[in-house]
Amino acid sequence: MSPIVSREFRLKSRPDGIPTPDNFELAETTLNEPQNGEFLVKNLFLSVDPYMRGRMIDRKSYAPPWQLGHVMDGGAIGEVVASNNPNFKVGQNVIGNASWREYYISDGSGVGKVDPQMAPLSAWLGTAGMPGRTAYFGLLDIGQPQHGETVFVSGAAGAVGSVVCQIAKLKGCRVIGSAGSDAKVAWLKDKIGVDAAINYKHSANMHELTAAVAAEAPDGVDIYFENVGGDHLEAAMSVLNMNGRIPVCGMISGYNATTPIPGPTNLFNIIGKRLLLKGYIVSDYDAQLSDFYRDMGGWIQSGEIELQETVVDGFEKMPEAFIGLFTGENLGKMVVKA
Amino acid sequence: MSPIVSREFRLKSRPDGIPTPDNFELAETTLNEPQNGEFLVKNLFLSVDPYMRGRMIDRKSYAPPWQLGHVMDGGAIGEVVASNNPNFKVGQNVIGNASWREYYISDGSGVGKVDPQMAPLSAWLGTAGMPGRTAYFGLLDIGQPQHGETVFVSGAAGAVGSVVCQIAKLKGCRVIGSAGSDAKVAWLKDKIGVDAAINYKHSANMHELTAAVAAEAPDGVDIYFENVGGDHLEAAMSVLNMNGRIPVCGMISGYNATTPIPGPTNLFNIIGKRLLLKGYIVSDYDAQLSDFYRDMGGWIQSGEIELQETVVDGFEKMPEAFIGLFTGENLGKMVVKA
Repeated sequence: MSPIVSREFRLKSRPDGIPTPDNFELAETTLNEPQNGEFLVKNLFLSVDPYMRGRMIDRKSYAPPWQLGHVMDGGAIGEVVASNNPNFKVGQNVIGNASWREYYISDGSGVGKVDPQMAPLSAWLGTAGMPGRTAYFGLLDIGQPQHGETVFVSGAAGAVGSVVCQIAKLKGCRVIGSAGSDAKVAWLKDKIGVDAAINYKHSANMHELTAAVAAEAPDGVDIYFENVGGDHLEAAMSVLNMNGRIPVCGMISGYNATTPIPGPTNLFNIIGKRLLLKGYIVSDYDAQLSDFYRDMGGWIQSGEIELQETVVDGFEKMPEAFIGLFTGENLGKMVVKA
Repeated sequence: MSPIVSREFRLKSRPDGIPTPDNFELAETTLNEPQNGEFLVKNLFLSVDPYMRGRMIDRKSYAPPWQLGHVMDGGAIGEVVASNNPNFKVGQNVIGNASWREYYISDGSGVGKVDPQMAPLSAWLGTAGMPGRTAYFGLLDIGQPQHGETVFVSGAAGAVGSVVCQIAKLKGCRVIGSAGSDAKVAWLKDKIGVDAAINYKHSANMHELTAAVAAEAPDGVDIYFENVGGDHLEAAMSVLNMNGRIPVCGMISGYNATTPIPGPTNLFNIIGKRLLLKGYIVSDYDAQLSDFYRDMGGWIQSGEIELQETVVDGFEKMPEAFIGLFTGENLGKMVVKA
């Protein structure tokens, strides 16, 4: 095998506000033949996710920040194209923390095999992958949805939110989704099957947002799935019923904030309404992964859960796709086809 | 029995900010002889509690607001002084939602007998009563303290907080209490036995408060017992460890606010640290009351929990005692001796 030239994106500078293309540097590396026990993977689909924004800055978080000049981290689905490892044969599809690069060499650690029979390759980055697991465990374990309850989902058109909406419908709930464009609202109603969808940008302030949610929730809200923070959390505190639950998955409204955003003024509702808020990270549920594959595999096979994704074509468009997460470009999971 | 003239306090006007004496009206009523099945109670100790502030205003809450011109609600310990009810004999000590009045006539509904052998009469309004139950269930059920963990208690010198501190010590935790005067800090160390106490008024801002707590919590904080809200909650979000728990009992810093107080800017910690926040009201645990009497009764008898109270002498001083809750006049439970 002759050496392979692989392009990769490196963190060039830390963003201030929404990331811009010049935070990223497209570079080339040369990979040599896999050594004994190693194999070469060509990435086919790469993931861009909101959590990556947190790693681009130098702040104490649940994971250390990325270093300047280093390749950007991230999940990807690839195919083994050369191998000196008997467990990973040429042609095998794999998933791993493969980073923003076209090729990589692995010894197998942190790399898993994926079964294209259970779900199409790209779906392993979305509904059948990390965002799907995030939706599944947060809604079911923390939210504990009961038949007939009302679930309000922020970031409903995103990779996680759109799966939350679908699982909540499967559980017999009334589902209200919030998103940031009329196109997303239409998509939520037509493709995701929510009972009601709100374009939060039509609300001039938190009070209007609260009224918009309340209008769609005649029996109040029992679960607020938190992807967004800010005004959405404040509105949720107002509309939640007694014993309401808030799985806290993300607060994307603050990810690009350059100054701290104050929290809701109505946190006192936590007491009177006996609210539960619980933060979590998908990896907290690694021990229950088989539950996810059993249920989600079945729902995908039966068509009860539809795979929804936005595919950006071309490895060189990774920064553009990533930035698009914060400017509302994606319907469902955003992936890049290399 | 000749008619009895009983003084009572009525809600004269709704407070704007910290209540003032002219929000209350001292009036007299005349009580006639108890009819068949009724008995006459003379109140001996009356309770003033922070929750009462919420009922004085006309805002949707977990309980309806008090009506102007009506007698103020509240718990009291009394003695039966005349009776036409065979279940409540003269001399029996009783507890009930007796309101801010010297005497009342009851048919027994909502009135319980108290046993002066288990705890002194006034303690039934504090450590052995509602504030003690609030401390017990919030800390143990929501906080789930483990031996060796660190517990940070706001409002630590109050009726609830001072019991939380003592139970946390019994459970083998390191306890850090926050209060609003040097006298309270000294009292927390000397009488309540906390490991560290902080006068939050010495901190000019949230950052200094965070640093002050962090300095006393070398291993971080595992449980933050929330009585206060505002800067305390924000500081707690910073110092809490992974999987930290926040029983949300009260947010007294906001009770007298005339404009909405923004929440913490660092709520994103809920996600990375997988924090749990859970609001509750003491009556949520009425089904487990026997657990409380078993444990707290034992701790009081053995002296493991000390009764701490501030007694204001004179029924006419009820408004003064109540206002003192918000100006930091009490060490432990504030009661009025009629």
